[in-house]
Amino acid sequence: MNAAERGAMERALRIARNGPRGVNPQVGAVILSADGDVLAEGWHRGAGTAHAEVDALSQLPAGGAEGATAVVTLEPCNHTGRTGPCAEALLAAGVARVVYALPDPNAESSGGGERLRRAGVDVAQGLLEGPATELLESWLTVQRLGRPHVSVKWAQSLDGRAAAADGTSKWITGGAARADVHRRRADADAIVAGIGTVLADDPALTARQPDGSLYDDQPLPVVLGARPVPEDAAVVRHPRRFVQYPGSDISGLLKDLRERGVQRVFVEGGPTVASAFLREGLADEVLVYIAPTLLGAGSDGADRPALRSVGVDTITQQRRLHIDAVQTLGDDLLVIARPITKED
Amino acid sequence: MNAAERGAMERALRIARNGPRGVNPQVGAVILSADGDVLAEGWHRGAGTAHAEVDALSQLPAGGAEGATAVVTLEPCNHTGRTGPCAEALLAAGVARVVYALPDPNAESSGGGERLRRAGVDVAQGLLEGPATELLESWLTVQRLGRPHVSVKWAQSLDGRAAAADGTSKWITGGAARADVHRRRADADAIVAGIGTVLADDPALTARQPDGSLYDDQPLPVVLGARPVPEDAAVVRHPRRFVQYPGSDISGLLKDLRERGVQRVFVEGGPTVASAFLREGLADEVLVYIAPTLLGAGSDGADRPALRSVGVDTITQQRRLHIDAVQTLGDDLLVIARPITKED
Ligand SMILES: NC(=O)c1ccc[n+]([C@@H]2O[C@H](COP(=O)([O-])OP(=O)(O)OC[C@H]3O[C@@H](n4cnc5c(N)ncnc54)[C@H](OP(=O)(O)O)[C@@H]3O)[C@@H](O)[C@H]2O)c1
Ligand SMILES: NC(=O)c1ccc[n+]([C@@H]2O[C@H](COP(=O)([O-])OP(=O)(O)OC[C@H]3O[C@@H](n4cnc5c(N)ncnc54)[C@H](OP(=O)(O)O)[C@@H]3O)[C@@H](O)[C@H]2O)c1
Repeated sequence: MNAAERGAMERALRIARNGPRGVNPQVGAVILSADGDVLAEGWHRGAGTAHAEVDALSQLPAGGAEGATAVVTLEPCNHTGRTGPCAEALLAAGVARVVYALPDPNAESSGGGERLRRAGVDVAQGLLEGPATELLESWLTVQRLGRPHVSVKWAQSLDGRAAAADGTSKWITGGAARADVHRRRADADAIVAGIGTVLADDPALTARQPDGSLYDDQPLPVVLGARPVPEDAAVVRHPRRFVQYPGSDISGLLKDLRERGVQRVFVEGGPTVASAFLREGLADEVLVYIAPTLLGAGSDGADRPALRSVGVDTITQQRRLHIDAVQTLGDDLLVIARPITKED
Repeated sequence: MNAAERGAMERALRIARNGPRGVNPQVGAVILSADGDVLAEGWHRGAGTAHAEVDALSQLPAGGAEGATAVVTLEPCNHTGRTGPCAEALLAAGVARVVYALPDPNAESSGGGERLRRAGVDVAQGLLEGPATELLESWLTVQRLGRPHVSVKWAQSLDGRAAAADGTSKWITGGAARADVHRRRADADAIVAGIGTVLADDPALTARQPDGSLYDDQPLPVVLGARPVPEDAAVVRHPRRFVQYPGSDISGLLKDLRERGVQRVFVEGGPTVASAFLREGLADEVLVYIAPTLLGAGSDGADRPALRSVGVDTITQQRRLHIDAVQTLGDDLLVIARPITKED
C-alpha cells in the first residue's frame, strides 16, 4: 500500500461523511489510476441509492477504470440488494486492485473481497481500519446487536428515588447534569419517553444548548404507550414529527426504529419504561444522574423509586453492571455503566 | 515562645495520649524551670482523676514550681468540678508563665487563661494549636455538637435497594467494601444496629481484619429496639458487653453514649434505624456503599429500599447532601457525604 492509496483512503473516509447516518453505512470510494492519480470519487447517499464504488465508477467514461485501483472504506458488497453487488460492478469495470479498510460485518452482503480475489483482482484489507471503525461505530453496533444501541437514562436521589412521595421532583439534578443530558440527546438518533412522562411532565424532547436554542441535530421523538398524546403537548411542536408506539413490544419498537435508520436510542423514562428496557435486557448502557440528596419514602409509605421491577425477585437474579465511569457534574454525579451479559 | 517551650509542648502532646479517649479530653502538661529544664510532667487519666497540670504539679515538692512555666495542651480549666480549677492550682503553685495550645471550647470550664492573666501570670496561647486540635478532634466535635459524632452507613444497589424483593441480599458489596466498613468500625467508639437487623442477620458487630482476626480497638456494640436479643445471638459473644436501648429516643441514646465517653458512633442500620437518624437530623456523615447492580422492586411490587421515610413528603423538604468523596472499592463505590444543615 503506497502513499497515494493512503491519501485516497483518507479522502474516502472524509467524503463518506457526506452520506447520511442511517440504515446503510456511510461509505466513501476513490478510484486511482495505475500512476496513483485520482480518477473519480463517490459516496453512498443512503438506502436505495448507488453504493460508493458504483457512484465513483459512474463518474468515468466506459473503460475509464480499466487497470485502476479502487480505494473503499468498507469491503465491497457481494449481494444483490436494491443496487446489485459492488464486487461485480468493479469486475465489470476492469479494476486491477481493490483496497478497503473494514471487512463487511454483514453475513448477507459480505464476501465481496473473496469474490474479487477469485476473479484475479489484487485485494488488500485493513488500510486505516481504525478511523473507518470509528466512522461506522454506531452502524457496526447495529449490525452486531441486530438492533439500535440503547442508552437508558434516569435521574435519582442518592437513595434511588425519582421524586418525593407526593410526586414533586423538578430539578433534583442541576444545570451541568441537564446540559449533559441535552448533549447526549443531540448525539442520539431517537429519544424515547413513556406516555406517563409525556402526560405528567410535558417534555419537549428536543436537544437544547444551555442558552435554550436547539442543537443542529435533533433526535426523532418517540412516545411509548397507548394513551393519546394531547394535541397541545410540547412534543407536538418538536422540529421532527413525533412517532407514537402504542404497544408494549419493545423489541418490535427497536426493529421499527432500525428500519427508520435509527442507530442510537436514548431512553428517558419514566420509571415504568426505563424498567421495561432493563427487564427485557434491551439496555446497552445506563446513565444514572445522581443528585446529592435523600428523599426516602413518604411518611405515609408512598414511594417514587426511579426504577420499578427489573425482573429481579431474588438476589441470584440481580442485574450486575460494569461501571465504566463516575463523573462529577456540578453537585451531581453521573454513573455510566453497562449491564453485564452472559457473554461478558 | 522559645525552643524549650516548643519541645515541652511536643512532649505534652505525646504524653496526653497516655490518657483514655472518653468523656474528658486527653491533655498533657510539662513544667519547665525558668532556665527551660523539665521539672515535671503529667497527663489526664480520665474523668474523676487529676487534670494534667495538677498531675504534673503533684510530682514537685512544695514551692518547686515557684517562678516556673507550665506548658499545657489545653487551656487550664476555671471551674470547680470533681477536681477543683487548674487555674487556681497553678496560681497557688506560684507559676510565672502558662503556655497552652488550644482554648477550652467549653463555656462552663473556660476562662482559665483570663483568670491567670488577671492574677499577673504571663499567658500565651496557640503554640502547636494544629497538632493539639488534631489530637482532640473527636472530643472537640462532641463539645461543638453537644453529642457524639454520628456516621450512618448503608449498602445499596445503584438503584437504592438494600435487598432483592424476597429479602435476599448477602454480599451485594464486595470484599474491599466490607474491609473498609470494618476499618471504620475499629475507628468508632460505638456501633449501633437495630434489633431488626440483629434478629435478621445475627451480626457480630465486631471490627475484623481481612483474615477474620479482631482489631485491637473494638467499638461498644449497641442494639436499638425493645424486642429481646436472643441468648445465642453473635453480639452476645462480642468482646465488649453489648448495651441495649429499648426506646426509640435517639437523642437520649446519644446523650447516654456521650456519658459513657463515646465520641464517635457508627450506625449500621437496618433501613428503619438509618432512616430514623436521618429523619431526626442526627447524622453528621453518611457512608453509602453502592454495589454495581440493579435490583428494583419485585414483580409483585414488594420493595426493599435501603432507606424508608427520612421525613420528606414533598421536594422542598429534601435532605440535601454535600458530597465529600466518591471512592472506588473493588467493583463498588463509596459515597461519603454530609447532610447540609441550615448553618452551611
Ligand atoms: N427521574 C427521571 O429521570 C424521570 C424521567 C422521566 C420521567 N420521570 C417521572 O416519571 C413519571 C412518569 O413515569 P411513569 O413510570 O408513570 O410512566 P412512563 O414510564 O413515562 O410511561 C409508562 C407508560 O408507557 C407505556 N408503555 C409502553 N410500553 C411499555 C412497556 N413495555 N412496559 C410498560 N409500559 C409501557 C404504558 O402506557 P399505556 O398504558 O398508555 O400503554 C405505560 O403506562 C413522571 O412523574 C415523571 O416526572 C422521571
Ligand atoms: N443494606 C444495609 O446496609 C443493611 C444494613 C443492616 C441491615 N440490613 C437489612 O435490614 C433488615 C433489617 O432492617 P429493619 O429496618 O427491618 O430493622 P432495623 O432498622 O435493624 O431495626 C428496626 C427496629 O429498631 C427499633 N428502634 C429503636 N429505635 C427506633 C427508632 N427511633 N425508630 C425506628 N425503630 C427504632 C425498633 O424495634 P422495636 O420495635 O423492637 O423497638 C425497630 O423495629 C435486614 O433484612 C437486614 O439484612 C441492611
